[in-house]
Amino acid sequence: MGTGSDECVVVIGAGLVGASIGMALVAAGHRVHLRDRVSSHARVAAGLGAGTTDRVPPHEVDLVVVAVPPAAIARTVLGALERYPNAVVTDVGSVKGAVLADLAATSGDLSRYVGSHPMAGSQHAGPLTSTADLFVDRTWVVTPHSDASAEAVERVQRLARDCGGRVVVLDAREHDEAVAQVSHLPQLMSSLTAGRLVDVPEDHLRLAGQGIRDVTRIAASDPDLWQQIVAANADAVRTELLAVQESLAELVAVLDDPAAVREFIARGRRGTRALPGKHGHRATDFAHVVVEIPDTPGALARLFADIEEAGVNVEDLAIEHDEAREVGYLSVAVAPDREESLTKTMVGRGWTVRP
Amino acid sequence: MGTGSDECVVVIGAGLVGASIGMALVAAGHRVHLRDRVSSHARVAAGLGAGTTDRVPPHEVDLVVVAVPPAAIARTVLGALERYPNAVVTDVGSVKGAVLADLAATSGDLSRYVGSHPMAGSQHAGPLTSTADLFVDRTWVVTPHSDASAEAVERVQRLARDCGGRVVVLDAREHDEAVAQVSHLPQLMSSLTAGRLVDVPEDHLRLAGQGIRDVTRIAASDPDLWQQIVAANADAVRTELLAVQESLAELVAVLDDPAAVREFIARGRRGTRALPGKHGHRATDFAHVVVEIPDTPGALARLFADIEEAGVNVEDLAIEHDEAREVGYLSVAVAPDREESLTKTMVGRGWTVRP
Repeated sequence: MGTGSDECVVVIGAGLVGASIGMALVAAGHRVHLRDRVSSHARVAAGLGAGTTDRVPPHEVDLVVVAVPPAAIARTVLGALERYPNAVVTDVGSVKGAVLADLAATSGDLSRYVGSHPMAGSQHAGPLTSTADLFVDRTWVVTPHSDASAEAVERVQRLARDCGGRVVVLDAREHDEAVAQVSHLPQLMSSLTAGRLVDVPEDHLRLAGQGIRDVTRIAASDPDLWQQIVAANADAVRTELLAVQESLAELVAVLDDPAAVREFIARGRRGTRALPGKHGHRATDFAHVVVEIPDTPGALARLFADIEEAGVNVEDLAIEHDEAREVGYLSVAVAPDREESLTKTMVGRGWTVRP
Repeated sequence: MGTGSDECVVVIGAGLVGASIGMALVAAGHRVHLRDRVSSHARVAAGLGAGTTDRVPPHEVDLVVVAVPPAAIARTVLGALERYPNAVVTDVGSVKGAVLADLAATSGDLSRYVGSHPMAGSQHAGPLTSTADLFVDRTWVVTPHSDASAEAVERVQRLARDCGGRVVVLDAREHDEAVAQVSHLPQLMSSLTAGRLVDVPEDHLRLAGQGIRDVTRIAASDPDLWQQIVAANADAVRTELLAVQESLAELVAVLDDPAAVREFIARGRRGTRALPGKHGHRATDFAHVVVEIPDTPGALARLFADIEEAGVNVEDLAIEHDEAREVGYLSVAVAPDREESLTKTMVGRGWTVRP
């Protein structure tokens, strides 16, 4: 354990995010005290290993994490700044600008407050699904403001790192624009798609496959929570909805033009490729080792076995064809620094690797 | 192996669906011959165990499965009806009405043709991801028409069952309306959402979580394939898009009205609940056994252990609260026929079960 373990942290709000933070901080060696408006929530979270429900003298508290519903964040942060005079206070809400504006309107001292937003969660809201590794390798945005002390900013970044998150620093306005784009718009599009199902006959629903289940998974989220998020970020959300409304109108207008429909689908595919892959790589960052598949029985099985034995982490696989030569190739995507060793290994085992 | 194994089947088109059908039929004891416009596709599928690329005397063929891109289906079915005089011919395309209309326009004998549509697939198009159990427990729609022979309809239903699918019989028009609702609309909404990402700055994309990845997963699908599907089902797709366009306009209009936004999100949640759950159950079909969580350390862990030992399949878990009594409850969703035994077991182990 490095500097700063064994600190005293109060987590207010023992839902999925609050309980998961509690578990992660307990694992990092801190003393965590759980609070919830409904005391049995806090007890359940404590029973799962997220901390204790014991009382703590307020002046001993180093850090307060506010993990309550959006509409209650500002007043809970203000209450925590008053009650815990030595603590840095952060919240983990999905919208940062509105909270900061509400706090600033009270014109108190905000030097000990720094907002943050771990980009993890689930459509399941309760502590039952909480886990100490909910934030591991996930982006955790920290949103400093001009009155925040450098110490408070550093303390909240340390919270994010203690939970295994990857810190990204953004100001509140830019954060809110970004989440409107990558979180709030997708939520509303998922709800829009799922809402249409209410009118679909039951025997048609039996044809539903995995695709619609993926698209509508987050539409199962809590309406009360999302009403509050949308209200807090209405301007940025409106901008996104208007842009999508325009694209949808264009699609309807060109529905009988195959080339235009193809471009609409292709643009979506480009969008999916713009999303960072696992570990923050873009999909295009990988190197591709392309091996010829001989026209002999069992060749593919031997090829897979040799790749596995080479011990490189395979990020993706695809089959390519040379239509002129009537030959098939297996394209193996690997991290760029493993390209050379995989190529050497495969050539050494007698495979033909396309240069 | 029951009646009808060891038949001779030709699969035309060795992509994901064709190769997976080949694997399933080989496993069911049939002889499968693979054909593909690109012969190395067929060889790769054969190498994966989906059949052979050997030639077969046309009159020996019992069944032909056409698994080619949508725009090529009608002419491939016609070619197969001519080439294989004793075979029942089916296709596995995503749209049925347009193919049937094209075939009917040739005014030949269509008694040996019956369309079908296995509701399984993936945004990965190649044979590499094919698997014999792709269709297990998935809906497989069979779409008879007025000129189809009863024997041909039965033969195609048997194909579906041989692959482990669950047969649903619909006429072509109703099938196309259903897939516009549960497959084509979700695809276009996914593409619409993903298309917006093309304009999002890279540092905003670092905030992307699991939600947008789920919503946009199928947007990575093949633009050529989807262009053909949309073209073949344009009327039904247009109806869906117009309905969604209207809902979106309503959302934009009420964005500053929290109650209306809440109802929009809640409607989406109702839509997700209308989707059949695993094994075709609706989520609401489950029985709920509700156990009181005692206010003692470790109670929840013991409760989980006892439920596990009871050996019932837990479909869902939720925590409920009685705010008046300040007590927490664990709600355990199980199949209705397991409710009594789980209740007995839990009471027998000293837990308080809410009646």
